[in-house]
Amino acid sequence: MFQDRYFEDYQIGEQRQTMGRTITETDIVIHAGQTGDFYPHHMDREWCKTQDFGQRIAHGTLIFSVAIGMTAGAINQLAFSYGYDRLRFIKPVFINDTIHVRVTISDKREHAKRTDHGVVVEKCEVFNQHDELVLVCEHLLLARRRTPTTSI
Amino acid sequence: MFQDRYFEDYQIGEQRQTMGRTITETDIVIHAGQTGDFYPHHMDREWCKTQDFGQRIAHGTLIFSVAIGMTAGAINQLAFSYGYDRLRFIKPVFINDTIHVRVTISDKREHAKRTDHGVVVEKCEVFNQHDELVLVCEHLLLARRRTPTTSI
Amino acid sequence: MFQDRYFEDYQIGEQRQTMGRTITETDIVIHAGQTGDFYPHHMDREWCKTQDFGQRIAHGTLIFSVAIGMTAGAINQLAFSYGYDRLRFIKPVFINDTIHVRVTISDKREHAKRTDHGVVVEKCEVFNQHDELVLVCEHLLLARRRTPTTSI
Amino acid sequence: MFQDRYFEDYQIGEQRQTMGRTITETDIVIHAGQTGDFYPHHMDREWCKTQDFGQRIAHGTLIFSVAIGMTAGAINQLAFSYGYDRLRFIKPVFINDTIHVRVTISDKREHAKRTDHGVVVEKCEVFNQHDELVLVCEHLLLARRRTPTTSI
Amino acid sequence: MFQDRYFEDYQIGEQRQTMGRTITETDIVIHAGQTGDFYPHHMDREWCKTQDFGQRIAHGTLIFSVAIGMTAGAINQLAFSYGYDRLRFIKPVFINDTIHVRVTISDKREHAKRTDHGVVVEKCEVFNQHDELVLVCEHLLLARRRTPTTSI
Amino acid sequence: MFQDRYFEDYQIGEQRQTMGRTITETDIVIHAGQTGDFYPHHMDREWCKTQDFGQRIAHGTLIFSVAIGMTAGAINQLAFSYGYDRLRFIKPVFINDTIHVRVTISDKREHAKRTDHGVVVEKCEVFNQHDELVLVCEHLLLARRRTPTTSI
Repeated sequence: MFQDRYFEDYQIGEQRQTMGRTITETDIVIHAGQTGDFYPHHMDREWCKTQDFGQRIAHGTLIFSVAIGMTAGAINQLAFSYGYDRLRFIKPVFINDTIHVRVTISDKREHAKRTDHGVVVEKCEVFNQHDELVLVCEHLLLARRRTPTTSI
Repeated sequence: MFQDRYFEDYQIGEQRQTMGRTITETDIVIHAGQTGDFYPHHMDREWCKTQDFGQRIAHGTLIFSVAIGMTAGAINQLAFSYGYDRLRFIKPVFINDTIHVRVTISDKREHAKRTDHGVVVEKCEVFNQHDELVLVCEHLLLARRRTPTTSI
Repeated sequence: MFQDRYFEDYQIGEQRQTMGRTITETDIVIHAGQTGDFYPHHMDREWCKTQDFGQRIAHGTLIFSVAIGMTAGAINQLAFSYGYDRLRFIKPVFINDTIHVRVTISDKREHAKRTDHGVVVEKCEVFNQHDELVLVCEHLLLARRRTPTTSI
Repeated sequence: MFQDRYFEDYQIGEQRQTMGRTITETDIVIHAGQTGDFYPHHMDREWCKTQDFGQRIAHGTLIFSVAIGMTAGAINQLAFSYGYDRLRFIKPVFINDTIHVRVTISDKREHAKRTDHGVVVEKCEVFNQHDELVLVCEHLLLARRRTPTTSI
Repeated sequence: MFQDRYFEDYQIGEQRQTMGRTITETDIVIHAGQTGDFYPHHMDREWCKTQDFGQRIAHGTLIFSVAIGMTAGAINQLAFSYGYDRLRFIKPVFINDTIHVRVTISDKREHAKRTDHGVVVEKCEVFNQHDELVLVCEHLLLARRRTPTTSI
Repeated sequence: MFQDRYFEDYQIGEQRQTMGRTITETDIVIHAGQTGDFYPHHMDREWCKTQDFGQRIAHGTLIFSVAIGMTAGAINQLAFSYGYDRLRFIKPVFINDTIHVRVTISDKREHAKRTDHGVVVEKCEVFNQHDELVLVCEHLLLARRRTPTTSI
């Protein structure tokens, strides 16, 4: 469950894929309850029928949170998450849609201020059961280097 | 609860602030249950005692989701959320910390492909009870223009 | 979010209406779990099929609690809730029904013991998606007076 | 679990008492999530410190719902609940307070329109661990008569 | 609610039956969240369609926990639960199945080390709405004797 | 996440250990809500103070369910769980205790009726933060054989 991995060990292009998970009405109700976002887009099926998408849609923060949770694997104590870039909601996720996530190491770069760590970028792509991309983001991981860089 | 607002109506520098909310142990347990992220950083107080931060910390996705939920106000049917940029976890949030959010219109810009909408950027800053910044992100809102632009 | 309002500022006949919210199976299961009321009327769809109403019905306390929560707007620090009168369950609410609430200031009266506060009565009417009244109650608000009364 | 009881079987003065239940922070967070009432009185321990009561208080609808749930005993298929009168919040309930409920048959009366049913009034008194009354209400039960009345 | 019962008071062959309870999608999502078991058997309806059982199935620990909870009746302070034997998952339970439990005193025996207590075995049989047995186990209750035995 | 393993691949004596998880008040409240077991042992801190154990204790089914969830690793599609033997509650688990689980392959045996499968017994031992054994059980796994046995 713990697995040490240095900056140098990550390879651009590496890919892993999660199992699937069905987004249920329960998930939406619990997420509304956790966040306090009771917008009719998520909670009012009558109003939704009058809108373009025709039915309730999952909160963007729900899909993002669940998808990130799904990517959790072994714990690397040499790295930590410090943020996300370019999070985009591409398509709505409806009740009963089943999502899975593909994670790709898309970039490695120097950190502006730290010579002993580097930035690893994990591109997270979330797909529904029709293999349509519904959400995408870039996870920024700060990983310790085996050998400090001298280039910054 | 519904309030129409065009791209032209947003003013750079506008600011609003939410009420506060205490992040409880319950929030963390429910978020773990929703996302499946049971990492010891959030769930194992004995292990946390052996780490630098000394106690359980809230999931980044929990603070992000709750903070975004807290900013939900009137519904503007002329705009929709299409993503977030530069989401950063600045400081850990511990059980019993109380957060609030300050939202500032930080930018307005043209959309690369749509002449009838513009992008409004809401900078969301999340503070704890010591007024320390714990999380920051930029919310991207696509808002309809009163008058289509001709410049793209 | 905070908005001061004195007894004198409430007008009989004032009305506001909430957005809608669909009552889900999840709401019923969570309410049973919170209250410990697992009566077959709410939890056993086979038994319900043998009854007049033919399907599971929401707990009265669920509809009441959700409806009151839906009416929460700006916080008036000059008033506080001290109870409810004439709470009546008019019609059952089924899974997937969507409710909304209409609040009307129906009465203002003196308080028996306090000259510096008055009682504001908010009539709360809960409707389903067919605009049938399903629950009604009177919310009693004790609001500070701008000018103490001398009449009691 | 099912126990038939006619209007005539209820005796004014009959009394029963529930076991106790501690109201936890979890109960408040779940109730906020179910109702959407995230008022700082319940959710913001920093703001509460600046108020008279000094700490977070349970929602009135939470105490009411839990207390009513606690009184659920055998199911009487000859009676049904049709409402509550004179619900009053007497004292705040704080996190870690332990409540129990005393139910007393306080009145029996004819129903204005039904000769085959009568109204049984159950007075529900909720106490905390200091035996202080925190909430009171009158539960209205419509119970079938063994013998229809002729008096209305 | 409290009811004293000695070892001698339990009769082999005694039987009681619970009310029914429908196992909902919500129960499965909450159980996954509580236990961290997000296996696709419970959470991925697309994957389940490719399997023999064709749809999501409830966790074994969910059916066991709910069934045991359903058997909770009066509290006997002269006895306590010390375990279960021969817990078997006979048939899968699907979303919307309604279960009930039959409890039979199936055995009484001496405890290897205690002369003042005896072991009461409660056979718990869980059935679905088609009266098919889905789960069975033996609950071991250690009950105080009125008169200590001398036979061990 | 999927990993095929035949009966022959399991070795008696093999051992794995889970990470830790703190059992919170929230876990107990959610488990009471899921199972309907609101016994004062779990829910009434005042009553618990008058008992030998002095404080609220976790439900046995909670610790069992969480512990089993914690042992979930790779999915072996050649095996399935068919029950548990000798589940024993050795010591109470209190709020804030942190548990972890040690799984040992303790036995392998023939199945009475199936020549193409064998029974693998996983002994699950649950420990608290003081390394005291709190719960033990034997998980029965029915695993496909590479080569059918001829001995039954």
